[in-house]
Amino acid sequence: MPGDLVTLASGHKMPLVGFGLWKVPADTAAETVYNAIKTGYRLFDGAYDYANEKEAGQGIKRAIDEGLVKREEIFVTTKLWNNYHEKNHALKMAKSQNEAWGLGYIDLYLIHFPVPLKYIEPETLQFPGWWMDKEQKLIEKANVPLHETWEALEEIVDSGIAKSIGISNANAQTLYDLQTYARHPISALQIEHHPYLAQPELIAMAQENNIAVTGYSSFGPQSFLELPEAFRRRTKDITLLFDVEVVKNAAQRTSKSPAQVLLRWATQRNIAVIPKSNNVNRLKQNLEVTDFDLTKEELEAISALDKGLRFNDPGFYLHKPLRIFA
Amino acid sequence: MPGDLVTLASGHKMPLVGFGLWKVPADTAAETVYNAIKTGYRLFDGAYDYANEKEAGQGIKRAIDEGLVKREEIFVTTKLWNNYHEKNHALKMAKSQNEAWGLGYIDLYLIHFPVPLKYIEPETLQFPGWWMDKEQKLIEKANVPLHETWEALEEIVDSGIAKSIGISNANAQTLYDLQTYARHPISALQIEHHPYLAQPELIAMAQENNIAVTGYSSFGPQSFLELPEAFRRRTKDITLLFDVEVVKNAAQRTSKSPAQVLLRWATQRNIAVIPKSNNVNRLKQNLEVTDFDLTKEELEAISALDKGLRFNDPGFYLHKPLRIFA
Repeated sequence: MPGDLVTLASGHKMPLVGFGLWKVPADTAAETVYNAIKTGYRLFDGAYDYANEKEAGQGIKRAIDEGLVKREEIFVTTKLWNNYHEKNHALKMAKSQNEAWGLGYIDLYLIHFPVPLKYIEPETLQFPGWWMDKEQKLIEKANVPLHETWEALEEIVDSGIAKSIGISNANAQTLYDLQTYARHPISALQIEHHPYLAQPELIAMAQENNIAVTGYSSFGPQSFLELPEAFRRRTKDITLLFDVEVVKNAAQRTSKSPAQVLLRWATQRNIAVIPKSNNVNRLKQNLEVTDFDLTKEELEAISALDKGLRFNDPGFYLHKPLRIFA
Repeated sequence: MPGDLVTLASGHKMPLVGFGLWKVPADTAAETVYNAIKTGYRLFDGAYDYANEKEAGQGIKRAIDEGLVKREEIFVTTKLWNNYHEKNHALKMAKSQNEAWGLGYIDLYLIHFPVPLKYIEPETLQFPGWWMDKEQKLIEKANVPLHETWEALEEIVDSGIAKSIGISNANAQTLYDLQTYARHPISALQIEHHPYLAQPELIAMAQENNIAVTGYSSFGPQSFLELPEAFRRRTKDITLLFDVEVVKNAAQRTSKSPAQVLLRWATQRNIAVIPKSNNVNRLKQNLEVTDFDLTKEELEAISALDKGLRFNDPGFYLHKPLRIFA
């Protein structure tokens, strides 16, 4: 596998830069993924909830069939959605997601959110999101302890479906508790991570405990502008990170784009990134974010932009008086 | 029980204002507690770690013996320390703490931190704190799942030692997971809560789920000034809350002290408080924080001081590269 790699607690290696499949339309996903491989991407970050696993898998298979890459050079991350936290549902879902990708195995399987929601048969509603139905009725929480779901993930490793397992959107308390009962290590933590939500203590805790960190939404508010109001409510009156002075200055000094600076701010601290782009030029630029260095002062000045500003917030989705969905 | 009460999920009632025993010296605790009862306090918030349970109990017993109050008019909260999370240790510790108080039962028993540390025999070191010994060697984490500790607390209720149970210093993810397996309800959450660490989402989540919230360190940095450097590191260059304009203005308008305004900011939103004072006059003032109202604008202006500034931070105590103890 080319490019910078991180060794996971499982012993497997994960690329430091990947391609994020969130918001990639299913009808163009195969083509997008195939082109990303041609550009040099080897890690693809998917999720059941992104509703494009099958198509992304087709793009990868085409590249393999054409001899561009081998399966073992590709790293597929995908995630278990909230409605399937019960052990039997999780086992069934991992099997079915693995079949959708069609690549023999999943490299990294993550619990998408440490938030168990009521089970919904995929036959009734295939991709429930945070909503129940077209009336946007919120799905109730389910009483599935996280340790039950983690045990399911461990069995998914035992059965060979996934090579490594981890969790997304967990905080330090959740990781501490998970560690007390984990039989297979927590290989990875995926979190929202950009200068407006830097989470230095969570990242320090994870890295000290040999949990590889991947940051999503590396460009901050930018990732949420095209989404419904509920996701955008915190982007108002916020300077886009591309327009922030310290980011622009670092871009100018290094002759890179502000996007590359934001990605390098993460990778230079050994945090993996999974940007997405539909633009061929930017796709290539986003991959070139490990071959230049920001100064210590630049890294610190960017970290100092931290506002604790979380855009993807389950607490908000779940809290009845605050949420605007219900 | 006089004064404003909160009904807990267990069905029992808890006063909205109490006396916090953190940092009350053991040699004066009996007298302090006795005087607090004479002043009108009915709730005493203790912990194994405060090293004054026996003495606090003696103060309460004296007031009962003298006919000032009945046992059922008193509400005792205490907490299980980090080194005793294993079920057998927790059961033994609750029994021993209950005997130290000497009042027949504990009203509310809390897990002090969702952080299990290695067991230390109380005979070897009675109050380990976050350190192992006089060389300030940090105690290692222990692999005790929170669900094991919660089961112990449930048995402590079953055996009649505690009337209600809850947790301190937990965040929303921990509460969500606890809820999935709790046989007895989470009656209470105790957290650091002041305008510099307002935690509105955690509080909203807890209150929506019928978990009564108690705020500690209501005066923010003030509570940490006399502590060792490790606890004070975040108080530097911070305006004391008593000196903040919006707090002073609200105090002036209501003819109350800034301290009373800060406590009312909590109680008016149904958040219990547990201030401590060694000064008789302030002791009385701290109790009189439910009989006046702040305006909506004042509440919001005080809430807007939020900086996400946590003074009591286990993440910091536990993180090797950051901590200055080890």
